[in-house]
Amino acid sequence: MKTLLEAIRPTTFVESEKLKTFTNLDITIAAETFQHTGSFKFRAAYNLALNVKNPHIITASSGNFGQALAYACRLTGKRCTVVMPETSAQVKIEAVKNYGATVELVDTKKIARAERVAQLMREFPEAYQASAYDDLFVIDGNSTIGDEIAEKSFDVVISPVGGGGLIAGISKGLCRNGHQAELIGAEPLLANDAARSLRAGKIVANEYEPQTIADGARTLSLGTHNWAIIEKGVAEIVEVPDEKIMDAVRLLFNLANLKCEPTGALTLGAVLEKPARFSGRKVCLVVSGGNVDAEVYRRILAA
Amino acid sequence: MKTLLEAIRPTTFVESEKLKTFTNLDITIAAETFQHTGSFKFRAAYNLALNVKNPHIITASSGNFGQALAYACRLTGKRCTVVMPETSAQVKIEAVKNYGATVELVDTKKIARAERVAQLMREFPEAYQASAYDDLFVIDGNSTIGDEIAEKSFDVVISPVGGGGLIAGISKGLCRNGHQAELIGAEPLLANDAARSLRAGKIVANEYEPQTIADGARTLSLGTHNWAIIEKGVAEIVEVPDEKIMDAVRLLFNLANLKCEPTGALTLGAVLEKPARFSGRKVCLVVSGGNVDAEVYRRILAA
Repeated sequence: MKTLLEAIRPTTFVESEKLKTFTNLDITIAAETFQHTGSFKFRAAYNLALNVKNPHIITASSGNFGQALAYACRLTGKRCTVVMPETSAQVKIEAVKNYGATVELVDTKKIARAERVAQLMREFPEAYQASAYDDLFVIDGNSTIGDEIAEKSFDVVISPVGGGGLIAGISKGLCRNGHQAELIGAEPLLANDAARSLRAGKIVANEYEPQTIADGARTLSLGTHNWAIIEKGVAEIVEVPDEKIMDAVRLLFNLANLKCEPTGALTLGAVLEKPARFSGRKVCLVVSGGNVDAEVYRRILAA
Repeated sequence: MKTLLEAIRPTTFVESEKLKTFTNLDITIAAETFQHTGSFKFRAAYNLALNVKNPHIITASSGNFGQALAYACRLTGKRCTVVMPETSAQVKIEAVKNYGATVELVDTKKIARAERVAQLMREFPEAYQASAYDDLFVIDGNSTIGDEIAEKSFDVVISPVGGGGLIAGISKGLCRNGHQAELIGAEPLLANDAARSLRAGKIVANEYEPQTIADGARTLSLGTHNWAIIEKGVAEIVEVPDEKIMDAVRLLFNLANLKCEPTGALTLGAVLEKPARFSGRKVCLVVSGGNVDAEVYRRILAA
């Protein structure tokens, strides 16, 4: 069986002269859009599947973690069950199934996803219940991208923030390599619980699932394992309005030939929101994933 | 000044489990969409600008070669003039200008582009007139992607074919490394002069500029330098209908997170056209560039 470093695809560093000219900033993109299953989540999922002893892993995910875990479990010979709302896009349900997992569709008006996971855990007591972010195996898996970034010279690294799994991993990776870059988060303004948490000095949660276009950042709050790292390692979290997220998706398409999902474009959105903050500095933008529906993408390109 | 190998960005190899499952083929993509200026043409243009002694280079191009040459001339401190039809998209004109070249717009109803280039050559006798494909410096520049592909193990390599600069370069690169892969071309059915040439054993030209969606392959015929290499080094040229080119653009978007231009998608189009030809073999698809207008792309995604 492949080790984590053998299994993952190194991140794709992209520099675009057009993007540098347009922003007048020294930008390098670290794109996880070509990672296996199309997002950084495979780093987390594979590390989890490789290290937990349980023969069966159960998670709730309608997005990238579900696909990543399904594929990681296939590669490591584990059983995988993904709980998804029955309103999920058919293409996402099919993707999880095609990677070999069992999909449990729930009518979220009748039963919460977490409740269905709890039921399944009672039914399968040998299973491991996986969080997409609040898990040390997840953070460790994601730390590999921090190692890769640390091989290059940057003054600032910007990472998307949802549940905090990615930015905590990057913090860990940069730290253990002694890399001195300032680490900054990029979060949707409509889902700014992490920014509020950093200001309050403790975890602050959203009251309900935020309806930002950045669907990978619609989490209620940071995880406790994530918070412990973010609190110390993250200098600031920039709150990005949805319009700037969409501007960023378009700019990455037009100036860098990069297809990315709205959550992945948060980091360029942060630069558009606070350009002066990054002037004269060597900036690394982590673009976390590329899985976006064609119809959503068409609408963004047209706007 | 940077050498050619220092100046170019290595190609981006992408493997997508979803694309492999969908096609049931062992496909690896060699994407030039993140090459400087967004296409493989920068390899050719930089090698040309680096090696010709003339202080000024003139070319006719409404597409990727114009942008690539403009940027290469800026990097090598040469003057650059690009002749473009005045009907060219404003964004393409601006791109060439932003890379620092002089743009000469011509009304192609009044004067042919080649005639305007000839006028400029008389006006600037110290200039070098650059062909986008029929030039040994161009072929040599493109051969670097053949070297990169030759580092990996493939049974078949498929390359887009327009004027033949890319496939001739790949042939040269594979050959000098002793790589045994079969080299196959992918050409629009609507612009099938190269396929007809290979069948006839001599260069056959299109009578007028073919109106395929693959605008990088709207050349009238192969160049003579290109033909000399293609005749010996290319096993077959697959003729791809425009619908399959558009299918391929959509599949690369949906299954591989890759934004590419129609000409770049020719190689996946060839696989869709003749899947049995590639069954059980390790296939490398060269995706030559990513520069496509948002509106054209939106239309293709919607189809």
